[in-house]
Amino acid sequence: MVGQRLPVPRLEGVSQEHFMQDLYPQRKPLVLEGIDLGTCTSKWTVDYLSQAGGRKEVKIHVAAVAQMDFISKNFVYRTLPFDKFVQRAAEEKHKEFFISEDEKYYLRSLGEDPRKVMDNILIQVTGKKRIVLFSPRDAQYLYLSGTKSEVLDIDNPDLVKYPLFSKARRYECSLKAGDVLFIPALWFHNVISEEFGVGVNVFWKHLPSECYDKTDTYGNKDPTAASRAAQILDRALKTLAELPEEYRDFYARRMVLHIQDKAYSRNFE
Amino acid sequence: MVGQRLPVPRLEGVSQEHFMQDLYPQRKPLVLEGIDLGTCTSKWTVDYLSQAGGRKEVKIHVAAVAQMDFISKNFVYRTLPFDKFVQRAAEEKHKEFFISEDEKYYLRSLGEDPRKVMDNILIQVTGKKRIVLFSPRDAQYLYLSGTKSEVLDIDNPDLVKYPLFSKARRYECSLKAGDVLFIPALWFHNVISEEFGVGVNVFWKHLPSECYDKTDTYGNKDPTAASRAAQILDRALKTLAELPEEYRDFYARRMVLHIQDKAYSRNFE
Repeated sequence: MVGQRLPVPRLEGVSQEHFMQDLYPQRKPLVLEGIDLGTCTSKWTVDYLSQAGGRKEVKIHVAAVAQMDFISKNFVYRTLPFDKFVQRAAEEKHKEFFISEDEKYYLRSLGEDPRKVMDNILIQVTGKKRIVLFSPRDAQYLYLSGTKSEVLDIDNPDLVKYPLFSKARRYECSLKAGDVLFIPALWFHNVISEEFGVGVNVFWKHLPSECYDKTDTYGNKDPTAASRAAQILDRALKTLAELPEEYRDFYARRMVLHIQDKAYSRNFE
Repeated sequence: MVGQRLPVPRLEGVSQEHFMQDLYPQRKPLVLEGIDLGTCTSKWTVDYLSQAGGRKEVKIHVAAVAQMDFISKNFVYRTLPFDKFVQRAAEEKHKEFFISEDEKYYLRSLGEDPRKVMDNILIQVTGKKRIVLFSPRDAQYLYLSGTKSEVLDIDNPDLVKYPLFSKARRYECSLKAGDVLFIPALWFHNVISEEFGVGVNVFWKHLPSECYDKTDTYGNKDPTAASRAAQILDRALKTLAELPEEYRDFYARRMVLHIQDKAYSRNFE
């Protein structure tokens, strides 16, 4: 049993105005083709990057497989000079390696690590990626652990352990050099690099600035109203815990029905 | 598509000790047969009740059908002297009537109206009833409006309007004179009288006295911890309402997952 598979729509030659007025407000992922990205798509070769980036040491993720995950943490952190890293990452087989001769490398960011609370554009400068996205509306099928899904192998999921995962709608796209993917805030995404490449992520705030946690320099915390609501809910659950199990269970179910009635959207899928 | 149907277990000759030690703690409905109820099962005839009850006026429910419901309120309130009411209620066809010659009568209680927050024993003194019960664990399939189900016609439910109702497990029993039904607190019940009869309900507090609302003379309010939790939840939802719809929806879903994780029972069905 496999869930619904949907392609991420691809649009060519979209103007900034058309994107901002018509597409952005729809809050759905979208691949934009033929955007003018300047010369980087041809210029950022392995040689160019090695030269331009220099020998500054960078901390990289090293894993035996292309599918790195941040729940089981199937990777190790290692340090390499930037030029060395680029050369190693572009090799099929490694003569020098940390784990194995076909280990994979990932340099997450030259800066810090912003996450899915903000809107995001992923610019695929060189190389190929396969990206699978899941809607925030399907959160209940994704077996979240914090903000991440416990279903690590999305191509071959353990449906005995994660039966509801088959209900999650899977949006998929392949990015080639020059493609730009819009990922709306809150969408889950799963990325596999199919060859060596460089992607540039640009994150920005969709909500008014005051909605975000001011102590959150890197944009990975929930909006303040969401954090406060979660704290208040914990107080409600603490109160409910005064009751014996069967009553707690029943009134918890009533609370769920109330939340579904009051706070779930009816307007979109 | 019809949901699972289960008989309510029937047990004969259960001692008070056996009930209290072994059966009561299971928190499941149960029909007890052969309990010594004294002489009432044979003595409480129409004539006896008319005489013993006298002419005091009582407020009764009058409906065209046996299936009265308290959501659409398909009944009217009328007043009759008690003896007159008993005689009319025992007739198949009425010469004197309010609505129609086969209208049904229901005298809810000589006192007040306690509800399902307390444990309940229904003693069927005379007549027959069919009773259908639903577990509080199936609340999400019952389309609750307050504490009552919107699914009025449980024998012929509108599954287009109430599709989840087919998932509710239906516990059913028939009570004849002398049978005693234990209805644990929070269980939903639907009663049809199949002939004129008298039932006596006895309610009692299952939880420690301090769990109940002290202003609640008639025992129909939720335990205080449940009411407080619901109030606190409303504050959480008010906070969440500060966010735009898509964020509110997502974080509401996260709250639901949190409640299910923290407060739902895993120990029983």
